[in-house]
Amino acid sequence: MKGFASDNYAGVHPEILAAIAAANDGSHARAYGADPWTARAQELVAQHFGADARSYLMFNGTGANVTAMRACCRPWEGVICANTAHVHVDEGGAPERMGGLKLLTTPTVDGKLTPQDVARLAVRVGDEHAVQARVVTVTQSTELGTLYTAPELGALADAAHERGLVLHVDGARLANAAAALGTGFREFTTDVGVDVVTFGATKNGALGVEAVVFLTPGLDEGFLYLRKQSMQLASKGRFLAAQVIALLEGDLWRRTASHANAMAARLAAGVVALPGVRVTQAVQANAVFAILPPAVTAALMEDWPFYVWDDHTGEVRWMCSWDTTEAEVDGFVAAIGAAVSV
Amino acid sequence: MKGFASDNYAGVHPEILAAIAAANDGSHARAYGADPWTARAQELVAQHFGADARSYLMFNGTGANVTAMRACCRPWEGVICANTAHVHVDEGGAPERMGGLKLLTTPTVDGKLTPQDVARLAVRVGDEHAVQARVVTVTQSTELGTLYTAPELGALADAAHERGLVLHVDGARLANAAAALGTGFREFTTDVGVDVVTFGATKNGALGVEAVVFLTPGLDEGFLYLRKQSMQLASKGRFLAAQVIALLEGDLWRRTASHANAMAARLAAGVVALPGVRVTQAVQANAVFAILPPAVTAALMEDWPFYVWDDHTGEVRWMCSWDTTEAEVDGFVAAIGAAVSV
Amino acid sequence: MKGFASDNYAGVHPEILAAIAAANDGSHARAYGADPWTARAQELVAQHFGADARSYLMFNGTGANVTAMRACCRPWEGVICANTAHVHVDEGGAPERMGGLKLLTTPTVDGKLTPQDVARLAVRVGDEHAVQARVVTVTQSTELGTLYTAPELGALADAAHERGLVLHVDGARLANAAAALGTGFREFTTDVGVDVVTFGATKNGALGVEAVVFLTPGLDEGFLYLRKQSMQLASKGRFLAAQVIALLEGDLWRRTASHANAMAARLAAGVVALPGVRVTQAVQANAVFAILPPAVTAALMEDWPFYVWDDHTGEVRWMCSWDTTEAEVDGFVAAIGAAVSV
Amino acid sequence: MKGFASDNYAGVHPEILAAIAAANDGSHARAYGADPWTARAQELVAQHFGADARSYLMFNGTGANVTAMRACCRPWEGVICANTAHVHVDEGGAPERMGGLKLLTTPTVDGKLTPQDVARLAVRVGDEHAVQARVVTVTQSTELGTLYTAPELGALADAAHERGLVLHVDGARLANAAAALGTGFREFTTDVGVDVVTFGATKNGALGVEAVVFLTPGLDEGFLYLRKQSMQLASKGRFLAAQVIALLEGDLWRRTASHANAMAARLAAGVVALPGVRVTQAVQANAVFAILPPAVTAALMEDWPFYVWDDHTGEVRWMCSWDTTEAEVDGFVAAIGAAVSV
Repeated sequence: MKGFASDNYAGVHPEILAAIAAANDGSHARAYGADPWTARAQELVAQHFGADARSYLMFNGTGANVTAMRACCRPWEGVICANTAHVHVDEGGAPERMGGLKLLTTPTVDGKLTPQDVARLAVRVGDEHAVQARVVTVTQSTELGTLYTAPELGALADAAHERGLVLHVDGARLANAAAALGTGFREFTTDVGVDVVTFGATKNGALGVEAVVFLTPGLDEGFLYLRKQSMQLASKGRFLAAQVIALLEGDLWRRTASHANAMAARLAAGVVALPGVRVTQAVQANAVFAILPPAVTAALMEDWPFYVWDDHTGEVRWMCSWDTTEAEVDGFVAAIGAAVSV
Repeated sequence: MKGFASDNYAGVHPEILAAIAAANDGSHARAYGADPWTARAQELVAQHFGADARSYLMFNGTGANVTAMRACCRPWEGVICANTAHVHVDEGGAPERMGGLKLLTTPTVDGKLTPQDVARLAVRVGDEHAVQARVVTVTQSTELGTLYTAPELGALADAAHERGLVLHVDGARLANAAAALGTGFREFTTDVGVDVVTFGATKNGALGVEAVVFLTPGLDEGFLYLRKQSMQLASKGRFLAAQVIALLEGDLWRRTASHANAMAARLAAGVVALPGVRVTQAVQANAVFAILPPAVTAALMEDWPFYVWDDHTGEVRWMCSWDTTEAEVDGFVAAIGAAVSV
Repeated sequence: MKGFASDNYAGVHPEILAAIAAANDGSHARAYGADPWTARAQELVAQHFGADARSYLMFNGTGANVTAMRACCRPWEGVICANTAHVHVDEGGAPERMGGLKLLTTPTVDGKLTPQDVARLAVRVGDEHAVQARVVTVTQSTELGTLYTAPELGALADAAHERGLVLHVDGARLANAAAALGTGFREFTTDVGVDVVTFGATKNGALGVEAVVFLTPGLDEGFLYLRKQSMQLASKGRFLAAQVIALLEGDLWRRTASHANAMAARLAAGVVALPGVRVTQAVQANAVFAILPPAVTAALMEDWPFYVWDDHTGEVRWMCSWDTTEAEVDGFVAAIGAAVSV
Repeated sequence: MKGFASDNYAGVHPEILAAIAAANDGSHARAYGADPWTARAQELVAQHFGADARSYLMFNGTGANVTAMRACCRPWEGVICANTAHVHVDEGGAPERMGGLKLLTTPTVDGKLTPQDVARLAVRVGDEHAVQARVVTVTQSTELGTLYTAPELGALADAAHERGLVLHVDGARLANAAAALGTGFREFTTDVGVDVVTFGATKNGALGVEAVVFLTPGLDEGFLYLRKQSMQLASKGRFLAAQVIALLEGDLWRRTASHANAMAARLAAGVVALPGVRVTQAVQANAVFAILPPAVTAALMEDWPFYVWDDHTGEVRWMCSWDTTEAEVDGFVAAIGAAVSV
């Protein structure tokens, strides 16, 4: 079974699995991240994000994002986000119940926040009856497969900083974004004023690890405690670190992400001219959103796993991953073409 | 570097790493535990714990124990435990802050709760000013390397059930306990009335996975939501499940645990007669607790990593793992012998 | 200083203060609500809301509403409300941080939820990644001074119950609603299927007390514990109960509410024809919302306290209370008239 | 019914009720504490506690103590207290569930913490697995009716400050303590280094109000938000403030407290020589603890309400209040005398 359901349906990239095996070298390593692999991962993060970057490895995106936001907020502070943000709609209430965080949300057209949104939501400053905005969180690439440019993120960072807020980037697909932008990570994070990033390795080909990367010095005060308390501290930390090393030491992160992006572009190109298929979002990373006739969707799903994104509109999501092949894309395009022409 | 610091300093057993690699078979698998490996792990758990056992795989012990206790408690209910319990002293406040759980603690001599402790702590029933006891949690084998017998756990289960409470077993080292008792898991859990168990695979040789196993039907209502919300739901779940399968499909869990136990016994036997060394707890699983002259401890730690357990008494902990060798034990015994005779 | 800022700027109705003084009869009374006054208040609540109604007295609306919602939700469940709901915008994050509750919000035109809103928000049932809707909360009368009719509340109750949800009414101004509808409380709560109500006494003339009233048997299980834990249990409970008794034993609740409503109607009638003044919401209880030229607003506020509701549109809120006089209304109308004609 | 059950069974002192009535002067007052009465209460608090003292009025002791501790702690920090502390045993889990606070407890002989206790509990500094001690909280007078002297509190403050901790005093009966010590409040709080105090007015004769008083500048940052979020912000704040004014403007606080203390001393003196009665704690404030034969206790409780403190030992608590009369004490002593001589 392979399909276009999610980039977390894919397995582990062989180079990453090899790195895990290599870290299992028969030695003992200090637990809880006090090991040489974790130190090496930190070095690589600093090479990619800048010398001040401080990284903390965690199990998954829920944990990484919620804990990163917890770190920035005092109890009366909250988080501005798009109402399509994963932290708002897909975390089972973890931000609220585990983090105590109120999310201040806004609709968007393309999943992207703007400085105007920040201005509109960061209000009632000093009013004890209102949660005080403290974090702006954006997803890069977004839940709708769109991208923020570096200047767009810079403008958001400025809008945040002017108000004493910080900018967090949920980078579950940060590598896809960097590959699409044709830059490294720091050009659209550190260099434009982003304060803290969640770098997602899992969808980038790892077995399972995410790094919270603090770019603004001091913002990570006490984060060691928070990570532990948030139940996100791995005992055999070397095996998390080995995955990050495998991705960041060479260009594996870019190879896997570029490939996934290219497959999405190929898919979009293949379907855009099909009758009855409307691509609904700009295809800028590794996702294609489209609206199909419901009967076509139902027929396709018998052979090709993917998700209906919006039951009301019939919008579907097709996600490509590091292991999606050209043949699979072409086969899927052909199947769609056949289904729409019935 | 190898030593006696912790059984989580060890790496991954080769058979478990091979199982992870085998699960990485080039296919896509449904994320979040809806994959065949997770189904197979559930089958094996049911074989080991009984047909009603329902398992949920999680990242680590903190998450598994806190979420298991959350599942059993309404907001005004709390947890009885020994004041040496890991959940009390080593979880960074996760039970309280993430779970909202008050722990009702008692001193013990050997890390083991008794029915009398339960009777003494499960009081003020119906008094709205007092947290109402709901869970009794014990660690098997305990944080002090001691063991509950099956009848002892049965008596605790009875003491709990008589009062409408449930019995949870923190089994970070459940395999060591089973190996030491010479039984399977169910003889001292399901069969004697335990309601929910955390089965720890990590210290048993895994890369990182723990299973919360509900033995009492119905107790896991809503646990899928709780696991997700508790930030403990892995996306590529097959790689967690593969580890559990590797341990439980054959006798790997017992081989690794028995070996670690045997190494602790060898170590205890080696030091018990040394002058100035006093073994302080019964050596029933894979830990040895002892009191040494402080100068001896300091000298030993230069070459052999281990932890001082109690700064006041000088008590130290030596922990054996699945990969501890006889030669390492003998070398350490020799080093201790040399140090105490200086 | 008197004005139209809020109905909680008013003092205590003399009959309520007299009732407090009478309860201070030199005797001792059992603390924490185990006193005869509290029992009498419960009797009166049952007379007004039905024999099954169970009341719990609390300090304030924040506490009452948040604790009522906590009582209905398991950790993975959340609350549907209008995005103008007081619990969403004016509780300082208490629902989220103290209650762990995610609010599922929707815009409305007039502050009122509809069954269609419930249908649209109570989705993703069984999806562990999404908070499961459990409570629908509405405010009666609403934050915008509008009213739900009894059939409207009945339709919401039906929409909730069909989905296994419960309907909560935030009745900070429940008396104003009953007075406006010309009925008692039960006709638009108990009788149409509302499950739990917060009956607000404070804005109805009390010194400070709110009653959470459970109408659906069983829903209050454990609420004594929740109230205590939520820091809302008064020690000298008789003085809270005395206020409720004073309001509910005769018709004081209706006299005070009807008067406030009448003053709002008089105010609206006085300004509706003024040039430059647009009344923006139906005036159905004790609030008037209007849009004025900003310069007029600024000039008026020098002498008459009131709040600007929306900085963007210039909408203002004028709130009448039990002690607003006709002369004050007429004086304010005259002042507005003078200001707009400058 | 009057007896010796609790000092919160008493009603409101007439002077306090008169002050509430006087504040109900027909005017409107800004809600939520922005009124002249609250400003006046703050002035008086500053006169009593020192110019830097900043007060926040709250509903009850649970709310005041938990919110004061929340204000001092980051998420990974906790609270040192005696295992008899009210916050530990009588708050229904509010510190843990509402505040997320872990309590680090120790047994004591007389309900009083010592600097040695602080030294023993404020350990594992920097260890991410352990909650970091941040607050030392003591109760003055204690739950066992004993008193800290000013030097004892100073020594605790020193022990706290040396470690970067703060000292909080739960002063539910602070007036009883001051009266017993023969000083004002500041001599044993501000002047000896206490950082934050909960001043309890309710047991001192009020209807219901407690003041959190921050003595260390800066420690109250954001407390306005915390109070609101903690559901402890009264809308008609003038009526809370009026009570504090009535107590603190003259010597009412001392008159009521001294009287209660004197009644306890009279009671202790009356029973100390009775056969079978053993007074178990020093009688230093308004409580008497004693052990009686169980049959005597049972017989007495038919006519005189009081509480059994310890079911195991039969220890009882007799609490005197501002309205306890000499005749009641003498009658109770006579009843005890009669009961023990049967």
